[in-house]
Amino acid sequence: MTEEPSPQEPQRPLARAPRGFQDRRGGALSVERRILEAVSRVYESYGFEALDTGAFEYADALGKFLPDADRPNEGVFALRDDDEQWMALRYDLTAPLARYVAENWESLAKPFRRYAFGPVWRNEKPGPGRYRQFLQCDADTVGSDRPEADAEIIAMALEGYEAAGLERGACVLKINNRKLLNGLLTASDVTDEGQKLAVLRAVDKLDRLGAGGVADLLGAGRRDDSGAFTRGAELGPRAIAAVLAFVEAGGGSRAETLDRIAGVIGGSEEGEAGLGELGRIGEALGRLGIDQNQAVFEPSIVRGLEYYTGAVFEAELVLSAGAPETSRFGSIGGGGRYDGLVARFTGQPTPATGFSFGVSRLAAALAAAGAEGEVARGPVVILALDQGLMGDYFALAAELRAAGLAAEVYLGGSGMRAQMKYADRRLSPAAIIMGGDEVAQGVVTIKDLDLGRRLADGVSDNRTWREDRPGQFTAPRGAFIAPVRRIVEAAR
Amino acid sequence: MTEEPSPQEPQRPLARAPRGFQDRRGGALSVERRILEAVSRVYESYGFEALDTGAFEYADALGKFLPDADRPNEGVFALRDDDEQWMALRYDLTAPLARYVAENWESLAKPFRRYAFGPVWRNEKPGPGRYRQFLQCDADTVGSDRPEADAEIIAMALEGYEAAGLERGACVLKINNRKLLNGLLTASDVTDEGQKLAVLRAVDKLDRLGAGGVADLLGAGRRDDSGAFTRGAELGPRAIAAVLAFVEAGGGSRAETLDRIAGVIGGSEEGEAGLGELGRIGEALGRLGIDQNQAVFEPSIVRGLEYYTGAVFEAELVLSAGAPETSRFGSIGGGGRYDGLVARFTGQPTPATGFSFGVSRLAAALAAAGAEGEVARGPVVILALDQGLMGDYFALAAELRAAGLAAEVYLGGSGMRAQMKYADRRLSPAAIIMGGDEVAQGVVTIKDLDLGRRLADGVSDNRTWREDRPGQFTAPRGAFIAPVRRIVEAAR
Repeated sequence: MTEEPSPQEPQRPLARAPRGFQDRRGGALSVERRILEAVSRVYESYGFEALDTGAFEYADALGKFLPDADRPNEGVFALRDDDEQWMALRYDLTAPLARYVAENWESLAKPFRRYAFGPVWRNEKPGPGRYRQFLQCDADTVGSDRPEADAEIIAMALEGYEAAGLERGACVLKINNRKLLNGLLTASDVTDEGQKLAVLRAVDKLDRLGAGGVADLLGAGRRDDSGAFTRGAELGPRAIAAVLAFVEAGGGSRAETLDRIAGVIGGSEEGEAGLGELGRIGEALGRLGIDQNQAVFEPSIVRGLEYYTGAVFEAELVLSAGAPETSRFGSIGGGGRYDGLVARFTGQPTPATGFSFGVSRLAAALAAAGAEGEVARGPVVILALDQGLMGDYFALAAELRAAGLAAEVYLGGSGMRAQMKYADRRLSPAAIIMGGDEVAQGVVTIKDLDLGRRLADGVSDNRTWREDRPGQFTAPRGAFIAPVRRIVEAAR
Repeated sequence: MTEEPSPQEPQRPLARAPRGFQDRRGGALSVERRILEAVSRVYESYGFEALDTGAFEYADALGKFLPDADRPNEGVFALRDDDEQWMALRYDLTAPLARYVAENWESLAKPFRRYAFGPVWRNEKPGPGRYRQFLQCDADTVGSDRPEADAEIIAMALEGYEAAGLERGACVLKINNRKLLNGLLTASDVTDEGQKLAVLRAVDKLDRLGAGGVADLLGAGRRDDSGAFTRGAELGPRAIAAVLAFVEAGGGSRAETLDRIAGVIGGSEEGEAGLGELGRIGEALGRLGIDQNQAVFEPSIVRGLEYYTGAVFEAELVLSAGAPETSRFGSIGGGGRYDGLVARFTGQPTPATGFSFGVSRLAAALAAAGAEGEVARGPVVILALDQGLMGDYFALAAELRAAGLAAEVYLGGSGMRAQMKYADRRLSPAAIIMGGDEVAQGVVTIKDLDLGRRLADGVSDNRTWREDRPGQFTAPRGAFIAPVRRIVEAAR
């Protein structure tokens, strides 16, 4: 694509990653992969099967069914195939699932339970922390309208968070049902779809604006501190009071919340259906061993506007006691029941429920909580000081690896000082030195690099530190594994 | 992208995967993922760090540096970003590595060892077994010109194959060095680059055409059975004899092959350099504990034409004794030393060596060898026969999972017969039945579905089989795990 460079003036491409795409290395990546492995095992134990579809879908099959319906025309990366068909990179894992289910409906054992993970792409304006490629990890059950299918997904998500390294209780699943508010609005004679959406948008702001702000948005509208005015849902006072009573009905055990909800939803058929579904979810959660504080009913949960049709779930990381407010991570996953996706292809409404596991946010949370080392420790580095001893260095490395310790021989061309610096930059726990003296004495020299780092932090006089050679000692060539292991394990 | 469908005549998109893209499920996928997990662990134990770059690269950075230089203009999926820059999906993992290394050269601890896996895309004409997206898994060391770096990559690859499930000896790594043949040609006064390429192409056909066919291609050319003529490299008779002696110098121990090679390469500087490098690779392999039959020197190995600059490796699956010829899988990975990639960006030749692990081919080979179950077994299925007992069904499933057995409650709306069919289609090892009778007696009914399948295969009279209810028995509700576990473990 570039022209052949002329010898006089080489035209070299500039090495840079495309805008909005991330290069990721070591620690952060390993944490994410361990999460995916752990969660996959949990999903498989619940009978969910892995599915992997290609990165592309035909644009018409992909549609514009984004969960965040506030931005229905959000960009995708699209290109025209050589047969003139438009293809686009998937923007989530649900649209490919719907296409797959519709394409294979006859041959699928139903309900179809599948999990999937992988990159998705959105052609948005990149910004700090805002990428155009990111990871999703979903589990969905297609073809079951039973509330127990929702309960199972919730229980499985909670077990997934635990398997991924969160302590039980560090994550709470908040559960709501779209039918409740819909039914309440119907009972209050609110039937206009635009008005209903405005109500959902208002309720979604409860956390940020409080009950007063939401009341304004349910009524005539709200003027914020900057003077900007947001039009309201134009509900009457009684409807506003009913909606507020509903969204504030959370708290306490699941049964208590259900009782409170029953008292405020006003008895519409849809509301009663939603209440019945929540009740069955609650029963199943109990039988699945899910504590009252692990999964709660929370009427203020909204999630996605035009996408979900019944139960909705949101996984939130709970602040541990005494943690600063800034350590709040909020949502680390969510999902709900939807029935429009497969119908786009087949014309048959097909019940489905699913959960999207927020792997990246969870990885960040685990790192912040110190539960998982975000920092990748390097291997034990065997310095290469004598070309004639390279074979011996390789033997040392092989012995360490056979003992379960990551190890490498330095393979660059630099001297001892640069090799120590290399081991330091790799965050290696230990370096091993073997020169002619060591060979003659039948020993190896082991350097505890963490101890060196700690001492260097505390000692201002670098010279003193160097001459003392702290954390440097010899061990017999035939018994060097154990002391290295002690250093490596202390470093973890 | 589709127009809004009219109510009269809904315009539904056709559910189909784009041409050349695969949907993959269950067994095959799980085998691949287990391979990636196992190989990743091995690579990390050698001090290689995970790197993940985005799917896109700028088109100029991607270049046209495909390993298979016979098709240098092979298609990529490219699109124009909104800032007018052309981006393309990566076609391999090496080009993004080169870009990453060039972009971060100053801050990298060198030599830089990284492994990576993920999808790559090629915009080729799809066909049977020929996909436009596939998986690659690479490990590379950038910044070391030591032959020991090659040896380490070879040893690591062999350990990776073993960790992935191949028996030791089932895979042999064949090693060559580009400098040997280059040196031999120089010594034979062949200096034209086009002629050298023609020699490589001819040697690459040794397996298929034998020494006679290769001799034709090294000389004037060869007419095949169809009458088509391929122009030859136009070497003189002495050069042809020298090349043939070289490519047939393999066999025996690494040291024996080296001796034979030394006798035929004709003493050019480049040839001696290649011989020295192979010698050091051999020494290091010995110290890394690699047997003579695990890694051999094989002068007929070519791999990629214009890409590699020194050592080249090819991993081949060995036919087990008595296996039919059709079970031959051939290459399951390979790599070598290259130094042009980073230089494209920096202008500085940068030594690098790497290996690409053929995950998909290995997965297919393992499946064919029966070493890994390509077939995904479904979970234990608890039939849902009585809505009033759903909670009990969930409790059974939770107990099974807590005991390490994958289990699910059937959550569709169908009756017993369809539920049994569901369990059968999932390839579940067992189904659990609990109705009113079982509850009254404090038992569950367990059905060994594999036994049923085996009996159904052998019994022509379906009625007899059904009435005997083979493999169906009851167990106390409080002690049903152990018999289920026996069935599941027998099914593995």
